[in-house]
Amino acid sequence: MNALASLRRRLGELDDLGALGRLAAWDQAVMMPPAGGAARAQQLATLERLAHERGTSEEIGEWLEACEAGDGELAELDRDAVRLARRDWERARRVPVDLAVERAAAHAEGETIWRAARTAGSFAAFAPALARNVTLARAYAAAVADDGQGAYDALLADYNFGLSAEGLGVVFGRLAAELEPIVAEAGRRPAPPALRVPEEAQRAAVRRILARLGVDGEGWRVDESSHPFTVWLGPRDLRLTTRYDDGGLVSVLGALHEFGHGLYRRQMPADLLRTGLDQSTSTAVDESQSKLWEDQIGRHRAFAGVLAAELRVSGLAITPDEVHGALTDVRPTPIRVSADPVSYPLHVVARFELERALVEGTLDVVDLPAAWNEGMRRLLGIEVPDDRSGVLQDIHWATGAFGYFPSYALGSLIAAQLWEALERALGPREEALATADVAAIRTWLGNAVHRHGRRLDTDPLLERATGGPLSPDAFLRYVGALVG
Amino acid sequence: MNALASLRRRLGELDDLGALGRLAAWDQAVMMPPAGGAARAQQLATLERLAHERGTSEEIGEWLEACEAGDGELAELDRDAVRLARRDWERARRVPVDLAVERAAAHAEGETIWRAARTAGSFAAFAPALARNVTLARAYAAAVADDGQGAYDALLADYNFGLSAEGLGVVFGRLAAELEPIVAEAGRRPAPPALRVPEEAQRAAVRRILARLGVDGEGWRVDESSHPFTVWLGPRDLRLTTRYDDGGLVSVLGALHEFGHGLYRRQMPADLLRTGLDQSTSTAVDESQSKLWEDQIGRHRAFAGVLAAELRVSGLAITPDEVHGALTDVRPTPIRVSADPVSYPLHVVARFELERALVEGTLDVVDLPAAWNEGMRRLLGIEVPDDRSGVLQDIHWATGAFGYFPSYALGSLIAAQLWEALERALGPREEALATADVAAIRTWLGNAVHRHGRRLDTDPLLERATGGPLSPDAFLRYVGALVG
Repeated sequence: MNALASLRRRLGELDDLGALGRLAAWDQAVMMPPAGGAARAQQLATLERLAHERGTSEEIGEWLEACEAGDGELAELDRDAVRLARRDWERARRVPVDLAVERAAAHAEGETIWRAARTAGSFAAFAPALARNVTLARAYAAAVADDGQGAYDALLADYNFGLSAEGLGVVFGRLAAELEPIVAEAGRRPAPPALRVPEEAQRAAVRRILARLGVDGEGWRVDESSHPFTVWLGPRDLRLTTRYDDGGLVSVLGALHEFGHGLYRRQMPADLLRTGLDQSTSTAVDESQSKLWEDQIGRHRAFAGVLAAELRVSGLAITPDEVHGALTDVRPTPIRVSADPVSYPLHVVARFELERALVEGTLDVVDLPAAWNEGMRRLLGIEVPDDRSGVLQDIHWATGAFGYFPSYALGSLIAAQLWEALERALGPREEALATADVAAIRTWLGNAVHRHGRRLDTDPLLERATGGPLSPDAFLRYVGALVG
Repeated sequence: MNALASLRRRLGELDDLGALGRLAAWDQAVMMPPAGGAARAQQLATLERLAHERGTSEEIGEWLEACEAGDGELAELDRDAVRLARRDWERARRVPVDLAVERAAAHAEGETIWRAARTAGSFAAFAPALARNVTLARAYAAAVADDGQGAYDALLADYNFGLSAEGLGVVFGRLAAELEPIVAEAGRRPAPPALRVPEEAQRAAVRRILARLGVDGEGWRVDESSHPFTVWLGPRDLRLTTRYDDGGLVSVLGALHEFGHGLYRRQMPADLLRTGLDQSTSTAVDESQSKLWEDQIGRHRAFAGVLAAELRVSGLAITPDEVHGALTDVRPTPIRVSADPVSYPLHVVARFELERALVEGTLDVVDLPAAWNEGMRRLLGIEVPDDRSGVLQDIHWATGAFGYFPSYALGSLIAAQLWEALERALGPREEALATADVAAIRTWLGNAVHRHGRRLDTDPLLERATGGPLSPDAFLRYVGALVG
């Protein structure tokens, strides 16, 4: 079947171009001399334009039709590759070139303006760029939406195909109602003593703990960047970063978080490579993998013994209880990225409400700061001191990423659901985690999640892996155990 | 002029793809986890295929014709961009796709086979791959050659457009005749004591000396790799590497060498960027820039004071005379990359004779080791102990790079010619080099060489910069002063 060979060749090419883009982005964040930015922006724009041209060309449509006509003869994997290629091609072709170009420019400018506005603490300086991004997001949503699909759902589909604002509204509504009193109560307790871990001891702990989980120098790199992230350039070329900017264990938790993203790619089956299927199926499931390693494992009482032992190697007299106490303290803060695992989803619920209202036109940009502060008061019980610690704190809207935020809270929920299913299958993990023995966990995640790549969307993957649909129940049980 | 805009857009795109390829190659040599090689090879192959398609497409021919028809209206720079684009496009299109694919595969396999054969010290294991490369080089030469152009000249044009085997034969013949007795005589002198510089002191010296020459963290990176090299990803994203594998100053000389390559790009005028003109005009002139910083500056008697002072910072009691003596010792060795600056070109002359004979069919691959050893005996007066230290030492032929070697010796000659012209213009550099004051040298090189990019080929550039044609005279005067 010639059309299939042509299609697969093109899909492989698009995967390669994607990897080169990720390499350029990784390099820019971790290695590039600062003055190299202008040339890099041009190189990335060229790469993106080429990938767009090659990913939306007419001939792909012809290959797809031929493959779909001979569907019965296709192997199962090829059928999935064709199905996803059809989805991606249709969506990409719905976007007029002018709109795509304008969005790219608006997002780049939005980020620059946002950085300056955040430094100045001036929402007014950011508002026009944000308003432009909202307008363009609506135009984009109108272009890509399926018949009858709402604007927010159309945006959501870029990150979490198959989920809906309505469904999220129900799940998040319940989450908010149940978490709000728990957070309020926990926040009134006395805070445990903060950990004081010298940076050298953090670095040693990150290195040694990652090594125990399976990070070897053959196929991984661990670097440093101001915003931790993970890229994969191949199944044996995985690169995670962490940051060392507090005196506690943010660096270690960040490394565990990024390891979860990396392991998703490390356990991608070889026959999915270069088919367009070799990616995470959604940002929610991707985030569940990082949250699971950060929260279910990194904050597990049994794992605190491993963390404390690694700190003692550097000569620190820290007990497992001290580590666990510090890592599980629940206390509202205005800043999302510093939030504890219990109040964290409330930050996301607030943003979901706001961005949905912006996109659906029921909230004006000019009214956003007041709405933001109201949400923080209502959901987290805190007063936002200023816009810098409030509406200006996140980069997402500045770069037009409306519809992304839910992934973070969904990640927390899905991680808890997967962990319960994992313990049902393997038995409790206390003993194994006390010795950092994660072999069975890796294998279970590989089978339940990683090996499917994009072949199963979020909902069917969850049904198959956990026996039920997306739900806050498991996460609420996790929270209950955590706050005791 | 619409065609010009289209052409310039494409040339910019090709420059961007080239930069992405260099980024991937740099990353592979310096940063990539070892197991990432398989995926990287695919990404590079995709990038190369795309660049080839975009660089040889029909439409470029139409744009070129339209531009050439309206030649009188073009700005000077655009006329040069069109002229070079025509040259590149014609040459690239002469290569049948099948031949290009076969060459790429043969060169990749050749490198793998060569590595194993070199480790085993077995030329017989390498011979079939080498014979295949020779055959393919002849086929390639036949495809790209201009009417009446010889096979070796056609290969040479990929690296040094406008030079000829006949011209090189005359220059190299004189060079060999004059150098041979000088090297023989120098090699009989007692060797000066070897330098013993701890690696930390080398690192500090590399860092501090490069900083004094203008390498700042804003636009440069300095890393380590087993084979030092330089890439530029933009005029403010320059990356050089060096190596620290001996106890002397190879690391410092290597860094100076690579700095010369980097400065060529650093001083490329902004209006040449993304026009296809923003590259070195030939590998010979490129090599002259590195040799000038390594030999004329790094081995200058006055600069030895700077080097010694930087070593004293690390607590080493080394005098300028000891540094200069060690860096200018002339003594034949079988290994090219370890050779002193005087005997070095003789290694190149030997390789030029051999590769020319291979390509022209007057030497069989099976007879190469004996011919190699005879050349070393005749030109350098040394007996090659084994093929590993002989015919198997270089990677070039394994990857099909016939016609590259002359660039190294030409670099030495051109560096000496440029340096004489520079001192005629600026006066002797003793005083300036004694304080590492290289501002005037940088400016002179920028005007004489760097600012032209590819607008002047090697010969016209040399005529303009030095007032005369390529000649060994200046280099022989340099050698005379060096061996005193």
